[in-house]
Amino acid sequence: MPRRIVIIGCGVSGTTAAFQARKTDRTAKIVLLGDETLPEYSRCGLPYAFSHIVPSLEALIGYDEAFYEQMNRIDLRLGLKATRINTEKRSIEATRSKDNSIETLGYDTLVLTTGARPSTVPIPGSDLKGVFTIRTMNDVERLTNHLVENNAKRVAIVGAGLTGSEMAEALLQRGMAVLEAEIVPEILPVILDPDMASIIRARAEEHGVDYHLNSTLEEIVGRNGRVSGIRISGENYPVDAVIVAVRVKPNTELAREAGIVLGESGGIKTDERMATSAANVYAAGDCIETYDRITRRHIFFQLATTAVRQALVAGINAAGGNAEYPGSTGVTTVKLFGLEVASFGPTTTVSEKLGLHPVSVRVTGSTRLPYYPGGKDLTVKLLADPKDGRLLGAQLVGEEGATLRANLASMAGHLGLSVEEFEQIETCYSPPLAPVWDPVTIAAQALLRKLQTSQAAKSRPVTTVEN
Amino acid sequence: MPRRIVIIGCGVSGTTAAFQARKTDRTAKIVLLGDETLPEYSRCGLPYAFSHIVPSLEALIGYDEAFYEQMNRIDLRLGLKATRINTEKRSIEATRSKDNSIETLGYDTLVLTTGARPSTVPIPGSDLKGVFTIRTMNDVERLTNHLVENNAKRVAIVGAGLTGSEMAEALLQRGMAVLEAEIVPEILPVILDPDMASIIRARAEEHGVDYHLNSTLEEIVGRNGRVSGIRISGENYPVDAVIVAVRVKPNTELAREAGIVLGESGGIKTDERMATSAANVYAAGDCIETYDRITRRHIFFQLATTAVRQALVAGINAAGGNAEYPGSTGVTTVKLFGLEVASFGPTTTVSEKLGLHPVSVRVTGSTRLPYYPGGKDLTVKLLADPKDGRLLGAQLVGEEGATLRANLASMAGHLGLSVEEFEQIETCYSPPLAPVWDPVTIAAQALLRKLQTSQAAKSRPVTTVEN
Repeated sequence: MPRRIVIIGCGVSGTTAAFQARKTDRTAKIVLLGDETLPEYSRCGLPYAFSHIVPSLEALIGYDEAFYEQMNRIDLRLGLKATRINTEKRSIEATRSKDNSIETLGYDTLVLTTGARPSTVPIPGSDLKGVFTIRTMNDVERLTNHLVENNAKRVAIVGAGLTGSEMAEALLQRGMAVLEAEIVPEILPVILDPDMASIIRARAEEHGVDYHLNSTLEEIVGRNGRVSGIRISGENYPVDAVIVAVRVKPNTELAREAGIVLGESGGIKTDERMATSAANVYAAGDCIETYDRITRRHIFFQLATTAVRQALVAGINAAGGNAEYPGSTGVTTVKLFGLEVASFGPTTTVSEKLGLHPVSVRVTGSTRLPYYPGGKDLTVKLLADPKDGRLLGAQLVGEEGATLRANLASMAGHLGLSVEEFEQIETCYSPPLAPVWDPVTIAAQALLRKLQTSQAAKSRPVTTVEN
Repeated sequence: MPRRIVIIGCGVSGTTAAFQARKTDRTAKIVLLGDETLPEYSRCGLPYAFSHIVPSLEALIGYDEAFYEQMNRIDLRLGLKATRINTEKRSIEATRSKDNSIETLGYDTLVLTTGARPSTVPIPGSDLKGVFTIRTMNDVERLTNHLVENNAKRVAIVGAGLTGSEMAEALLQRGMAVLEAEIVPEILPVILDPDMASIIRARAEEHGVDYHLNSTLEEIVGRNGRVSGIRISGENYPVDAVIVAVRVKPNTELAREAGIVLGESGGIKTDERMATSAANVYAAGDCIETYDRITRRHIFFQLATTAVRQALVAGINAAGGNAEYPGSTGVTTVKLFGLEVASFGPTTTVSEKLGLHPVSVRVTGSTRLPYYPGGKDLTVKLLADPKDGRLLGAQLVGEEGATLRANLASMAGHLGLSVEEFEQIETCYSPPLAPVWDPVTIAAQALLRKLQTSQAAKSRPVTTVEN
């Protein structure tokens, strides 16, 4: 009898797991459940479809339904929401959104790719018309309609992380005025130290973003059931819509109710084979906690890149193969207001909280030699653990070249290289393409000197005074 | 008494060694000899100054003389050619080009950064007016003058390596017709396999380069002592100038005559500290042979990036410090006709000659997801050693992103990673910047499958037939 593989959730993780399961087991019966009515689409692309850089929302859809069913014999069930897992009986229950009918599906192996959902804010007015989160295509459609119908001119964004920042730029591109409120003192606090984030903030302010940092969101103000303003730290600002982009929470209810163990982070706990605590149940993507190779803890990364690699492993193993996911450095990139912004590893604040007390340097170099036209400034911050000299993190901001250089530094982090080992990695040069000494190398050299100085200071012998 | 450091050769190696020696020993007396009359300038920039992308030849000069003398107390002696080293007496003799007077300089440590020089071709006509090599600023000035004075319209280039290819593009940009002759069947044979190089050749041909591959250069034809044509494989082609760009040879005469050991490659032999066989004599840059970490032999790299790293080490050690150079992967990049071309490691042909019998794949991916505008094709070829699965080389060609991705692959090569280990390195993604699965990762995945298949084929047990 063919193996029955059920996959719950048809975002990029579920889809990847399904295709990989098919490659691993040509005869398995594979069922892929999605509670939305659309097949997988790129959530990361939503801000760009909103701003019309991508011509339509539909362009974000990865594959049409025929590709699943006819080309890969994947039984794609859309509009079907899993509501219960019975790990004893190896079955799940699911509710059809069309008619609320309930269906039971048996499995030999199950993959949970239930994703995550955005948080809302527990303040007065958060249920008004005109308050949005940005997670689904439907969210963006509703936002767009609201802005058009109300002839909107001003939008407030709550949260200045990745999604909030991308939406700020997209809204400006659509001619809106943008106010962005953030509870902490600087934007992009998860991926950057404040000294690096301030470079992007300065650029965003030039483009017109009105930031309210260190601020307390007190109320979303309404008129006739519809957003008319926002009160931040005691001040009222008139706005036509509010986008809440504060934090994404893993969808773990289904797993938890089935007795599947969650980690301290709140995500589903898995081993390296992406196996959960329940026999024959695997999990991957935004619903799980991921092993962070740098800080050696399990945390909640919200990255498509970790999701697809985990899903690949889960799909192989659910189909009878054997693969392992080694964990991630959390390497991330985003383009904001003409700047590439990329990083891996914990920020200085997080490092300090973990007792790592990093040594760091910040260097601004150029992506070309001075004589060659078109070189761009690239600011690189590197963090190291002074105990063992290991590279802990990199943060890069510049008009070009940050993304791919973050990969290079992140590879060093992945492998646990010391700054000294990383500094020895040669990079290639040609006048139109790259400088002789890469800005990342220059930063590594500076960090190495700083580490050696701090090491020398520590190992200096205590002078005993003799009489 | 202060340490006396003498450095022979003031290209980028000599200059780097001098500055690093100064940083290492604040009181040393540092003498830097250059046989040209100009301080260090970027040789790699010459084609771009010729084509006027860089506004002038002078723009290529790294630092003015005051920066050496006043800022760094380096005694820069230009137009002074070292002619003899006496390693017993620790002294050198040098001839002043101005008046042929001879000077003797004593040293405590000596650094040889004598560089390399282009080869000429041993055929009739190679001494005609209008035959050039491209190594010095003076070469480019003479070429430019010749083209202008003779109202030149057609130029032949002998050799389709890096310099020949860069000059072909530069000549086209100056409105010349370009014929390029190469003895082997495909262009860029040192850094690329023919299947990769043909992508660039097709593009160059669209731009108008007239290639003569697999060809024999028989004669440079002259009229009134001046180039009027070139005979290749029995055919005559009228040209107004010939650029010979076939091979760069290390300048080792000075070292050899002093009894300093050369390696099999013909370059000066050094250890990891860049020490030569003579006591207190170091060497770096184009005049030495470099440890190739991939093929584990000493070969002759012609890269500014290896030169400066070696020179840094030589400068530190010559000044009493202690540093080591770990060898190189030979990672190289060049921009040709709008394409980034980058590689590290031996080509398939060289690998075969070394008995490595590599397994390889070639993959064309995109630098963006399909839905995001502006993504460019990137073709990636990866080579692995089937014996141990080690990544042996990478070759990348595309309109963007080849250079920095070559660094990533080269880092794997530097560290001796297997394809399996390299494939696990996560890369970052954002719609405007990079795809979820990087083309390099996709190539690594394909290569891993191919390695596993070939491994499985080998380990399959021999079937014994039973009756």
